[in-house]
Amino acid sequence: MSHVVTLNAGSSSLKFSLFTLHKDDPVAICTGAVDRIGSPEATIAAKTSDGRVLGGDGVGPIADHVAAMNRVLDLLTQWFPKAEIVAVGHRIVHGGPDHDRPIQLTPDSLRALEDLAPFAPLHQPYNLQGVRAAIERFPQAVQVACFDTAFHRHHPWVNDTFALPTEYYDMGVRRYGFHGLSYEYIADHLAKTAPLLHGGRVIVAHLGNGASMCGLIHGRSVGSSMGFTALDGLPMGTRCGQLDPGVVLYLMQQKGMTADEITELLYCKSGLLGLSGLSNDMRTLEQADTGAARRAISYFNFRARRELGALAAVLGGLDAVVFTGGIGENSALVRERVCVNMGWLGIELDHDANTEHARIISTPLSRVQVMVIPTNEELVIARAAARFVYPHMYEALLDKAAARTG
Amino acid sequence: MSHVVTLNAGSSSLKFSLFTLHKDDPVAICTGAVDRIGSPEATIAAKTSDGRVLGGDGVGPIADHVAAMNRVLDLLTQWFPKAEIVAVGHRIVHGGPDHDRPIQLTPDSLRALEDLAPFAPLHQPYNLQGVRAAIERFPQAVQVACFDTAFHRHHPWVNDTFALPTEYYDMGVRRYGFHGLSYEYIADHLAKTAPLLHGGRVIVAHLGNGASMCGLIHGRSVGSSMGFTALDGLPMGTRCGQLDPGVVLYLMQQKGMTADEITELLYCKSGLLGLSGLSNDMRTLEQADTGAARRAISYFNFRARRELGALAAVLGGLDAVVFTGGIGENSALVRERVCVNMGWLGIELDHDANTEHARIISTPLSRVQVMVIPTNEELVIARAAARFVYPHMYEALLDKAAARTG
Repeated sequence: MSHVVTLNAGSSSLKFSLFTLHKDDPVAICTGAVDRIGSPEATIAAKTSDGRVLGGDGVGPIADHVAAMNRVLDLLTQWFPKAEIVAVGHRIVHGGPDHDRPIQLTPDSLRALEDLAPFAPLHQPYNLQGVRAAIERFPQAVQVACFDTAFHRHHPWVNDTFALPTEYYDMGVRRYGFHGLSYEYIADHLAKTAPLLHGGRVIVAHLGNGASMCGLIHGRSVGSSMGFTALDGLPMGTRCGQLDPGVVLYLMQQKGMTADEITELLYCKSGLLGLSGLSNDMRTLEQADTGAARRAISYFNFRARRELGALAAVLGGLDAVVFTGGIGENSALVRERVCVNMGWLGIELDHDANTEHARIISTPLSRVQVMVIPTNEELVIARAAARFVYPHMYEALLDKAAARTG
Repeated sequence: MSHVVTLNAGSSSLKFSLFTLHKDDPVAICTGAVDRIGSPEATIAAKTSDGRVLGGDGVGPIADHVAAMNRVLDLLTQWFPKAEIVAVGHRIVHGGPDHDRPIQLTPDSLRALEDLAPFAPLHQPYNLQGVRAAIERFPQAVQVACFDTAFHRHHPWVNDTFALPTEYYDMGVRRYGFHGLSYEYIADHLAKTAPLLHGGRVIVAHLGNGASMCGLIHGRSVGSSMGFTALDGLPMGTRCGQLDPGVVLYLMQQKGMTADEITELLYCKSGLLGLSGLSNDMRTLEQADTGAARRAISYFNFRARRELGALAAVLGGLDAVVFTGGIGENSALVRERVCVNMGWLGIELDHDANTEHARIISTPLSRVQVMVIPTNEELVIARAAARFVYPHMYEALLDKAAARTG
């Protein structure tokens, strides 16, 4: 039976899955992750769909993403010797202004994606290294790039530009938005399970170590909290979120910081970690009994509320809110604080349902339905990769994708 | 009779007024402006309250703010030889974290304000030069500083901080907010003319060549669209407004621009001017029949709508919106586009009233009242300055100010 590998490289981790191409939808038979790439104590752990744990022991140092990728592909071959890998799907952070859907990776398209590295210097190079390692290992498989930006590429112009001279827009300085694979999953899921809401105005809050919000109308992205880079919008584990550009100028002109130092500050030392002085992890902060940890959580919730109001204005009102991502799926506290006193927007939370992490956490009378839906970026990647091998597979999904971008 | 001079220095202009201290409130007897400071063709024009035009001819080059200030003080002495100037009130852009109300300017406090220049390098030095010129000319008058930031100094912490490590907050990297004198005027005006709305949740949109929005509860500022500098928030005549900080890093690291070049770009070449390629003036853009001009206006309105939603979330709902400032008071088009399809927020615009620039431009049934109120920063400065000379004057106003900050 045909199989698809999905690879999702973060800054110090690599998530991977092996999917079997069932008739209706790809089915994951193994999912795992390499963590702490670059440290002397990297780990690889995976689980099969029938509950077996694979790997899990310390694997010693894994120097970089290419080494991690090779190790993963080794292990998958070893664990599933009979799997016929027909396609490898890669999550690629930046597709630039031109890519509104997945593409097959060829030497030419790979080179073009390298030109986009300046837009995402901390992520794009790792992504492309991963692609190269996979091509070398599975030269017979189709390699497919799924862009985190693609889902947002049809924003109205006012939501795509900054107020800079237009030549900056032309050179690619735009509000790309990210987490597109997650939003695509939620949009597809709503289309199947709640078609009326899918047809309306929905804000999806993807809250994890990276965090953003997306406004959907009829399943299409019309606005996002993230802009040109993955820094903007909501505060994140270690990233600042929205920041007065004057602060960057101040740090350079008055504090003598270099651009690299400021990059390190804004990407790696800010957000929840910077405000709490303790951790980038919401679970740790919720358990910590310090004022700084509570303040960091308050700021996170406050900015999410502010963005909820802003995106409601972008959508012209609101029919549903979906929480997803590590924090969105698991923190009842954050969901409660984001939704409390939002009656003016039509939100009325059901406290018990929220505490139990129910699928619907608003009251029956709430004008806006609030939901918790676990995201599944890997499935979106697997579907896209499969389509390049079997163009008629998952046609229903294809039709929807076409309707969305058409 | 006692008089107060108010001085309001912009980047290339200086507005001035002479007030008589009547029993109930200061009354302006002359208002004027020096424009195009630094150009070979500066102008000075003024008007008295009884309709006389003073000055008005080209006055040749005026090199800088000190020269402009001296010329203005000369003219005022010449035009009003009998005026007894007991106080001079200065609009000072930045009061830093400590000043939540006006202060008397002494050699010590002047030095302390100089330390804040790094927070507003383009404005603060001019402001302080103006103060020095006024002290030299009227050594017997009380000199009073009215800060554009003071009105916002009691924001909740979540609205005062960025998600940076806390030492940056401690060193003064905060969301100060600006246009505080304008917001103070509107808050006082509402208290007198619409006390019920004043007691509620109000968004004031100060839209001019500089633009920001402020959320008020019971006349106190709880949030603003502007942050650390006057760059953030809404797009402006030549300033960018909200910008992904990653764009600044990109321009430095990938495009090789210096901090000074980026400062020039974001402060002087962006906003309406940058998007339209035509003008920073909304009147010019409304009359222009180009796609770029229309797009620039659309972006301005779109960001204002987005901020309206965001501040409604900060306030926990909305009772009134007030438009003020050059654009807010005069552009029916902008007000219409900002308020259209805002029924979800309770706003229903009365198109005729809006076209006629009526005081109330929402329909009688609109849950949120929308108003147009001309601002008067000079009056706020004059009141503050007078209080330092006659502490018991305008006691009612003082009581309100104390209640607000108490």
